[in-house]
Amino acid sequence: MIIARQFRLEQRPDGRPDADCWSFDTATLPDLAHGEVLVRVDYLSLDPAMRGWMDDRASYAPPVEIGAVMRALGVGEVVESRADGFSAGDAVSGVLGVQDHAVVHANALHRIELSLAPPERWLGALGMTGMTAWFGLLDVGKPTTGDTVLVSAASGAVGSVVAQIAARHGCRVVGIAGGEKKCAYLVDELGLDAAIDYKSEKESLRAAVRRTCPDGVDVYFDNVGGETLDAALANLAMRARIVICGAISQYNTRGGAPGPSNYLALLVKRSRMEGMLVSDYADRFGEAVPTLAAWLADGTVKTREHVVDGFETFPDTFLMLFDGANHGKLVLKVGH
Amino acid sequence: MIIARQFRLEQRPDGRPDADCWSFDTATLPDLAHGEVLVRVDYLSLDPAMRGWMDDRASYAPPVEIGAVMRALGVGEVVESRADGFSAGDAVSGVLGVQDHAVVHANALHRIELSLAPPERWLGALGMTGMTAWFGLLDVGKPTTGDTVLVSAASGAVGSVVAQIAARHGCRVVGIAGGEKKCAYLVDELGLDAAIDYKSEKESLRAAVRRTCPDGVDVYFDNVGGETLDAALANLAMRARIVICGAISQYNTRGGAPGPSNYLALLVKRSRMEGMLVSDYADRFGEAVPTLAAWLADGTVKTREHVVDGFETFPDTFLMLFDGANHGKLVLKVGH
Repeated sequence: MIIARQFRLEQRPDGRPDADCWSFDTATLPDLAHGEVLVRVDYLSLDPAMRGWMDDRASYAPPVEIGAVMRALGVGEVVESRADGFSAGDAVSGVLGVQDHAVVHANALHRIELSLAPPERWLGALGMTGMTAWFGLLDVGKPTTGDTVLVSAASGAVGSVVAQIAARHGCRVVGIAGGEKKCAYLVDELGLDAAIDYKSEKESLRAAVRRTCPDGVDVYFDNVGGETLDAALANLAMRARIVICGAISQYNTRGGAPGPSNYLALLVKRSRMEGMLVSDYADRFGEAVPTLAAWLADGTVKTREHVVDGFETFPDTFLMLFDGANHGKLVLKVGH
Repeated sequence: MIIARQFRLEQRPDGRPDADCWSFDTATLPDLAHGEVLVRVDYLSLDPAMRGWMDDRASYAPPVEIGAVMRALGVGEVVESRADGFSAGDAVSGVLGVQDHAVVHANALHRIELSLAPPERWLGALGMTGMTAWFGLLDVGKPTTGDTVLVSAASGAVGSVVAQIAARHGCRVVGIAGGEKKCAYLVDELGLDAAIDYKSEKESLRAAVRRTCPDGVDVYFDNVGGETLDAALANLAMRARIVICGAISQYNTRGGAPGPSNYLALLVKRSRMEGMLVSDYADRFGEAVPTLAAWLADGTVKTREHVVDGFETFPDTFLMLFDGANHGKLVLKVGH
């Protein structure tokens, strides 16, 4: 009999997803049915998308029900299996939920190779995060050599990988991040061509994009929406591509968030704005993982996981995403 | 010596382009230089795009200078030519300006065949209007058989042609127009599958789109922006295409018009929003004209030109565009 510690959705947020959204409790997990696997959850991925799942709104994934264990990706180790293809001791990733043990159906699990990278990286550059960056940039953004690629939340989990893949494709890469420290990291550590500090009050975001992208923006990879998306729209090159990957600046807005008022730049510049969702590319992850793993191994692509230790810190740690307090892929270490 | 009657841009509009934006006067046209042609202007095309040219704002075309003859497309007859390929008596179209005679360079003129269609139609379905509809729908919207195509300003010059081309491609076509009369025209005369009266207060635009497009919108051809674009975004099918052709509801807005607040539907529905400008397709008009001319001739595509007689009515006639007062392609008959 396994007792799991769990965070459940107690109430839906009105704006910011504060601690009172959650209840923390223990529950006895059910016995394994045929096809199911018991996983000890070691690391949980904390992602902006989780904010969307907390709302009672139809989206690409159904809302988390009130009283249900909060949905989250995680990695862990198989404790017991009643499914073909999984045995005790296997390292796996999947939608495990915010709990320290999970009973899940085998078809929601993937085996991961810890010889290639440590477990937390399978939630980052070799997981959904890296796949989002790879397919969003290459398949939707379609950068070509010499293009100027602008990336928002560029020191974040997805953005930092996008920026480095773009650089490997011969693009001029400009990153937007909050604060001097993150901007220095982008230029000095990741080798971006320029960085824009959106928290700086020296110039408007729009002017900063114009200054750093004098030939206009060919590809804009948008993780944040809001004013940043408008600043990019105001500086598009002809036939530009905007990849809509997320809009973290908008997720906690009460009521209708404002849309990009400069969207008619799409007409003036004959440009395109397109949404992407990583799950559509699930059967193509194999195209990306070996190359990304090699780039990570030889250091030509660098990633940071921001690991916070302590399952019980989940409510506060989750809020770091919305305050820009994490630096790199935010991962919660469960601890046992 | 030719004296031309001309409308010049006297001041830029603050919102609505009222009569005080214009000055009406006569001017002596210059003698023809080599390569130039003197044209008697018979019909002028009044288009929403002209509103954009009145603002002092960089766009796909430079602003009309204060004091300059207002830019407009027109058709007319060559009076005198100092250019190869044009002779007195030729029927031509081109950017002639809001004047009753024009001296223009030959490379800005096209010969038109009045045996195929009357002159005003060369400003409509066989001119920029029809070409915008053809290439915007087919090249950017990429409809396929069985798609639901939603068209705003569907009884207007571009929209009515878009709707009928879509129907010829086996699509289910829903048009949005203002008033019962226009909606009846769409369904009864043009054979659309459904029409939405945006002036009706029976239901919200969003609910009306949901009701008439129960499987979602595969292609939305947007001429108006604003609330209509948001209603379409709220009802997209998966992998939908939004063609941004114009935004007449926004053109007279002072300051920043609101953007489409539902734009994150692009992510949820993995959809695309793309701007188009007809001038990019100039070297491909030959693909479209023979087919459209044949469809017009055999009555499978119907168009209406709304011809207003009287050059001096220009200021008031132009405003009909923004009041939805015209029914079909708005053309000013110059009269001599």
